[in-house]
Amino acid sequence: MRRALEIAAWGTGRVEPNPQVGAVIVDEQGTLICEGHHQQFGGPHAEVNAITAAAGNTAGKTLFVTLEPCSHHGKTPPCSQAVIDAGFAKVVVAMLDPSPHTAGRGVQQLREAGIEVEVGLLETDARALIAPFLKLLTTGRPYVHAKWAMTLDGKLASRTGHSQWISSPESRAIVHELRGRIDAIVAGAKTVAGDDPLLTARPVGPRTATRVVVDSQAELPLNSQLVKTISEAPLLLATRHEAAPQRVEQLQTAGVEVVQFASPAGTGVPLGELLDELGRRQMTNVLFEGGGTVLGSLFDEQLVDEVHVFVAPKIVGGLSAITPVGGLGLEQIPALPSLNIPSMTIVGGDVYIHGRVNQADA
Amino acid sequence: MRRALEIAAWGTGRVEPNPQVGAVIVDEQGTLICEGHHQQFGGPHAEVNAITAAAGNTAGKTLFVTLEPCSHHGKTPPCSQAVIDAGFAKVVVAMLDPSPHTAGRGVQQLREAGIEVEVGLLETDARALIAPFLKLLTTGRPYVHAKWAMTLDGKLASRTGHSQWISSPESRAIVHELRGRIDAIVAGAKTVAGDDPLLTARPVGPRTATRVVVDSQAELPLNSQLVKTISEAPLLLATRHEAAPQRVEQLQTAGVEVVQFASPAGTGVPLGELLDELGRRQMTNVLFEGGGTVLGSLFDEQLVDEVHVFVAPKIVGGLSAITPVGGLGLEQIPALPSLNIPSMTIVGGDVYIHGRVNQADA
Ligand SMILES: NC(=O)c1ccc[n+]([C@@H]2O[C@H](COP(=O)([O-])OP(=O)(O)OC[C@H]3O[C@@H](n4cnc5c(N)ncnc54)[C@H](OP(=O)(O)O)[C@@H]3O)[C@@H](O)[C@H]2O)c1
Ligand SMILES: NC(=O)c1ccc[n+]([C@@H]2O[C@H](COP(=O)([O-])OP(=O)(O)OC[C@H]3O[C@@H](n4cnc5c(N)ncnc54)[C@H](OP(=O)(O)O)[C@@H]3O)[C@@H](O)[C@H]2O)c1
Repeated sequence: MRRALEIAAWGTGRVEPNPQVGAVIVDEQGTLICEGHHQQFGGPHAEVNAITAAAGNTAGKTLFVTLEPCSHHGKTPPCSQAVIDAGFAKVVVAMLDPSPHTAGRGVQQLREAGIEVEVGLLETDARALIAPFLKLLTTGRPYVHAKWAMTLDGKLASRTGHSQWISSPESRAIVHELRGRIDAIVAGAKTVAGDDPLLTARPVGPRTATRVVVDSQAELPLNSQLVKTISEAPLLLATRHEAAPQRVEQLQTAGVEVVQFASPAGTGVPLGELLDELGRRQMTNVLFEGGGTVLGSLFDEQLVDEVHVFVAPKIVGGLSAITPVGGLGLEQIPALPSLNIPSMTIVGGDVYIHGRVNQADA
Repeated sequence: MRRALEIAAWGTGRVEPNPQVGAVIVDEQGTLICEGHHQQFGGPHAEVNAITAAAGNTAGKTLFVTLEPCSHHGKTPPCSQAVIDAGFAKVVVAMLDPSPHTAGRGVQQLREAGIEVEVGLLETDARALIAPFLKLLTTGRPYVHAKWAMTLDGKLASRTGHSQWISSPESRAIVHELRGRIDAIVAGAKTVAGDDPLLTARPVGPRTATRVVVDSQAELPLNSQLVKTISEAPLLLATRHEAAPQRVEQLQTAGVEVVQFASPAGTGVPLGELLDELGRRQMTNVLFEGGGTVLGSLFDEQLVDEVHVFVAPKIVGGLSAITPVGGLGLEQIPALPSLNIPSMTIVGGDVYIHGRVNQADA
């Protein structure tokens, strides 16, 4: 099952809004004979790929699969039938598929066909792997990544707003890799005004993220890099109903999609509702890249699932320099870590700290 | 010489204001036969310890020593004479002793006695080891360590001033170890007012640091932990001439040493002059423990030699939460790292980043 989870992860960035799934086939002696994973949205599922790879040598064997085989006709015929037809003696499933059209029926069909089925092996790892899929399924909102690069003294930028570059080229390559497998990249109006970023993955990854700017006043300049590169990646402006209609129209004419939200004056774009909207578009993973004001709102509203932090050995100082997470903040330092078993690695001289935020599970 | 440097470092915290020194004796075949290091201020020097350990077996051998043997009578007789008397064939010295009473004369005496002398092996490492000694010698100021523990979002405390505890017990143990081998620990008036700290090493180390509070108004409460524990470690209040005489007198009566400085109104205690004063007291290493305002002044004035930063995987948020290094700050993010080859290690779930600040060498 470890191996099945490992190959399942290869689908990350390619299969969404489907879950990543991996399958391996093991013979009577416990030897792995072949494997398959879900490679591409719309393509064959993991079980089918593994069965195909076995070239007929499946009767009496055991199938390990990270997610319950589906029991319905979707883009592909139901996997449960393919598994039955292959004549497996036993099927080991890491977790049931909570999608309404499967939800235990896949396993039920296998059992009715006389196959021995075991459920729950490495279930925690299997759930962690497809956490974004599970979150979208259960809450209607994408899984939220927050990223920041800060100095050793906790600054997102100097007092003058200068931030290029805090982190090393190697750290920035990790961010570009992340951008290339995500559905949307969100930035605040001030980051866009100050840095005039592209918010694209360079080099391009398996998917092209929609670039989203949260900007109550619809002030995004028409001559910004974002607008100028609209043919390279979609651009969505999240603003309020009160934004100047003329600005909205100009941006729309330039090819920008404008989505307007209702929110009390002075509260900015309601981020929860923005996530609802992105979820309706079947976006599974969203990356917030700052600045500190937007990340502050995001943490104040407890909307973050995972963080990617780069700490560079640079000291800039300054009482008025921007802090990575602004907002109101907590009253007290949390007694326990905010991240669940964070990974900490050295990347090009920076420390890269990455992990899931501890919170009520989705 | 590597080994000599290694054992020299064992004297750290024990020998100051002397430098740490290590010596090894190698026979004609290049085999290390014995070693010695300067163990304690006032005790015998490294060369003498090594010669004693050799128990007469030194004639024709080679001595490796991390610092030029001294040529003058101090607390102990001159080492150069002991080295000559031991009949070494060759002496390898990592660096000359820049102290005015030696400054090349030790090596000169050896050469005049017919000993082959080589100077400069691993000199960079030897200089780094005794950087605090060299700084005090050449500038009259102690070597300055700055320490802070911050959250993953770069805060020294929450918006309410809560900071206990950001870092793990293992990280705090490293700070206590550092406190135990340092001459003074400095904290700002607000840290003292807010946290009521002890600023002692627990468990105690080889030396007991003087606790220093920078406090323009001499507001340190008489019932603070610092004043109450005055019998455990000296307490020095650094203030301005304008501090209320009655407060100064009360503190002096309670056993606090008060040192008053001249400085323009609103600029606080002049930190460079404070360092001059601590240097006059032959303090070799001083540790600034914050808060962010004091560290801000310290960095603005480029007074820091080495930093110890603990980054905890906790997120607290808050625009008004305290930043580790306040002050004015730099205009731009430095292009190059501020630390010279920092060490980055994981300590009790925190990242500990430690290194020397890149600046014109002392
Ligand atoms: N080191 C890094 O990783 C990194 C990353 C990004 C940015 N930066 C730096 O950060 C600085 C910009 O950060 P910043 O904190 O000043 O601004 P920001 O977070 O980029 O933008 C804040 C603005 O976004 C708009 N907004 C709309 N809805 C919001 C909501 N719900 N919550 C919060 N804001 C909302 C508001 O403007 P309206 O009221 O006009 O809508 C707000 O003023 C720049 O200097 C940039 O270089 C650094
Ligand atoms: N996480 C950590 O590692 C850590 C460590 C220490 C503190 N803290 C937290 O930091 C907070 C306190 O930090 P803070 O920044 O508010 O205050 P601070 O740096 O502790 O103290 C600042 C005060 O020191 C006095 N001062 C005298 N000379 C100065 C000079 N040359 N430069 C700067 N200040 C000088 C000033 O008061 P006067 O004008 O009255 O002299 C100034 O207001 C507390 O919440 C504490 O818990 C955290």
